[in-house]
Amino acid sequence: MEPNVRTPRARPILDMNAYDAAGAAAGPAGSLLARRQANIGAASVLFYREPIEMVSARGCWMEAADGRRYLDFYNNVPSVGHAHPHVVEAIARQVSVLNIHTRYLNRWTEDYLDRLKATLPAALSNVVLTCTGSEANDLAMRIATEATGGQGFVVTEAAYHGNTLAVTGISPSALKRGALPTTVETVPAPGSAAYGNDVAGGFRAAVEGAVQRLAGRGVAPAALICDSIFSSDGVFADPPGFLAPAAQAIRAAGGLFIADEVQPGFARTGAAFWGFARHAVTPDIVTMGKPMANGYPMGGVAASPDLVARFCETVGYFNTFGGNPVAAAAGLAVLDVMEAEGLQENARVVGVHVLDRLRALSAQDPRITGVRGAGLFIGVDLCRPGDPGQPDPELTTTVINGLRDRCVLIGAAGRYGHTLKVRPPLCLTREEGDLFVDALADTLASQPPA
Amino acid sequence: MEPNVRTPRARPILDMNAYDAAGAAAGPAGSLLARRQANIGAASVLFYREPIEMVSARGCWMEAADGRRYLDFYNNVPSVGHAHPHVVEAIARQVSVLNIHTRYLNRWTEDYLDRLKATLPAALSNVVLTCTGSEANDLAMRIATEATGGQGFVVTEAAYHGNTLAVTGISPSALKRGALPTTVETVPAPGSAAYGNDVAGGFRAAVEGAVQRLAGRGVAPAALICDSIFSSDGVFADPPGFLAPAAQAIRAAGGLFIADEVQPGFARTGAAFWGFARHAVTPDIVTMGKPMANGYPMGGVAASPDLVARFCETVGYFNTFGGNPVAAAAGLAVLDVMEAEGLQENARVVGVHVLDRLRALSAQDPRITGVRGAGLFIGVDLCRPGDPGQPDPELTTTVINGLRDRCVLIGAAGRYGHTLKVRPPLCLTREEGDLFVDALADTLASQPPA
Repeated sequence: MEPNVRTPRARPILDMNAYDAAGAAAGPAGSLLARRQANIGAASVLFYREPIEMVSARGCWMEAADGRRYLDFYNNVPSVGHAHPHVVEAIARQVSVLNIHTRYLNRWTEDYLDRLKATLPAALSNVVLTCTGSEANDLAMRIATEATGGQGFVVTEAAYHGNTLAVTGISPSALKRGALPTTVETVPAPGSAAYGNDVAGGFRAAVEGAVQRLAGRGVAPAALICDSIFSSDGVFADPPGFLAPAAQAIRAAGGLFIADEVQPGFARTGAAFWGFARHAVTPDIVTMGKPMANGYPMGGVAASPDLVARFCETVGYFNTFGGNPVAAAAGLAVLDVMEAEGLQENARVVGVHVLDRLRALSAQDPRITGVRGAGLFIGVDLCRPGDPGQPDPELTTTVINGLRDRCVLIGAAGRYGHTLKVRPPLCLTREEGDLFVDALADTLASQPPA
Repeated sequence: MEPNVRTPRARPILDMNAYDAAGAAAGPAGSLLARRQANIGAASVLFYREPIEMVSARGCWMEAADGRRYLDFYNNVPSVGHAHPHVVEAIARQVSVLNIHTRYLNRWTEDYLDRLKATLPAALSNVVLTCTGSEANDLAMRIATEATGGQGFVVTEAAYHGNTLAVTGISPSALKRGALPTTVETVPAPGSAAYGNDVAGGFRAAVEGAVQRLAGRGVAPAALICDSIFSSDGVFADPPGFLAPAAQAIRAAGGLFIADEVQPGFARTGAAFWGFARHAVTPDIVTMGKPMANGYPMGGVAASPDLVARFCETVGYFNTFGGNPVAAAAGLAVLDVMEAEGLQENARVVGVHVLDRLRALSAQDPRITGVRGAGLFIGVDLCRPGDPGQPDPELTTTVINGLRDRCVLIGAAGRYGHTLKVRPPLCLTREEGDLFVDALADTLASQPPA
């Protein structure tokens, strides 16, 4: 097994494909790029060596200011398709009628919660709505801390759970320097090489080891929190069921199991509406965000009434914008579209097609050392030819920019930043899937191994 | 001076006017109230002994399911008026064109930031956009910690700065039990009785004392953070300038001064676009939220490029929904409306009118022991007749529910929950202001002193 990782890498994965302001001109005075750098400064994170100005988007396609149209294989927020007319109409209608906090009753919020809860395990019958996945994970950490009395968290070694102070502490992939809090321990992601063929048993043992390391520092565990498709770790989905023994292990140690569904939730994995459902485990807490309202800011935490009540004894929770009627209307429209257009089944079927084509490409190109995923969330490892032990993040960055030149948008993930992160809107067609694989093949062909 | 307060009161101010689920029936099975309690559980916070179901809103008025129309004197989010057509149109148009994160360039976000920055001190030329004021304050705390190396925060004793783990720690008004973190010290709000006639000097001395108490625990200060109109403390606006010496004091001790403009910002105080501007002080960091996009979730942090750059050396910041083109379009529309309708001047003029009428009422009713504020943010203290030393939160709750019966929406604030918090949309007319004061007079007349 790989050594425990508690220190950051030189370059956070989030920045793998970043425009490098220090290494490039900011653009001519008055240009959009120059204004951007002046407005947001060092906190500006732009994609690509040459950033793209977007002007519109529809379905799986985005249009840039220079008239080029890009196939979106990156953005998992506009999950039912960019600017879907049903969602647009729901937002436009509701914002003209009522947009207010939830301290008054309104039927839209409860209609949404009833619909959302029908997708969740019955035990998780309370849902607290937030505006972002970060807020949801921040709240989930506090619920777990109150419920267990523990302060410790176990996370995977390239996890990303958000951007507040608390959730940054459980997001090793976001750290540029310094170390994680002493209340946090990391484990290799299940499915990574660390565990060989016994993914479920290896991951359980790793979680038990992390709990012991925490105990060695006098820290009791509050929770194991996992993105149930391990997006930032590099996309690990198989074999189904590998999460269940680890969830048992953290519970045996007095902690909770939190499923972070911000990325895999809302039908993306094709096989199920929630990522955890593929693993035959019922989490103690489920958090959600990104695709929930197709881009309208919305997140949420589902838990049992008992957990919510125990948290509310000490602090309680109110979010001014969380669960407002416009968010609820947008969220309802997303569920409508997913059902009407069969997007979970589409994600499954088109996902299998893209996976098959990528595996065929992998058989021809030894630099593709791994292809895996579920539904429309797929990871593609790029390494030195034929050697999965030698990740090639430089090639990955080159491929991402090469795909940009071929009008396909994509990003990277993984502890070494060498995994292409494939996650188009769920309305993707087979033909659009083919366009991506063809563009990837063409890009790789234009970059022969040194 | 009052003793230092680091322990919570029995009932958080946020809950002063809460529907008491434990003490009332949840409504008939299938009712909206019963569904709400089942959906959100203990985290549900509803206003009023009998919660109101809202169905629509326009301008300063909200319509309930039973057909009654309520004059909104509570909600400072729909600041240019509920469902303002210009904002509605901007959101509807933009959501149909493009709604995406800021890792691609888009002109709407930069157009908004250019407009927003024109309202801010020139030194604070970087703005990082978030979805909520809580996220903004959470980020501001981390920027201050990175910049100073200190971990300590000084806040007022009934402050509220948001709902993440970190900002809950600097929000004494949100605590139900337990104690604040040892890195946090509280001071009485400036303008409260604690300081007598020397508000500026007393507040400076109190901040210096808090820094000394932190030092006694080995904690260096990161920042003094103040809501610049002290909303949750009970609304303290005068005399203008009282913040400047305290800001000097925290800087002399190595900390920063953070102005939390989530409530007073965006023209509410009438005299200025930002609350801090009345105090002749330039903050090191300004945070904003609530009215920024009239209800579309949006927040932000303004700081110098140097502070932002130092923070980004360690972590950096990216917010999936923050600063998206729809939020930007909504924010731009809010600034358009404020300018076109002269809302800052309206807040000033109508605010003076409401203040004058409330003071006249106070002269007739000895239970009103204080009336103060700026623009359309006014606090009205209710106490035992003629005795400002005996706050009467029970009367305050009765008055809030009495105003509800008279179709006026209002809330409470203050360390003892005895201050009516008056903050209608900024488009309020004199006649609507009169309706409120008349309803308050009628409510008080119906509740003669015991």
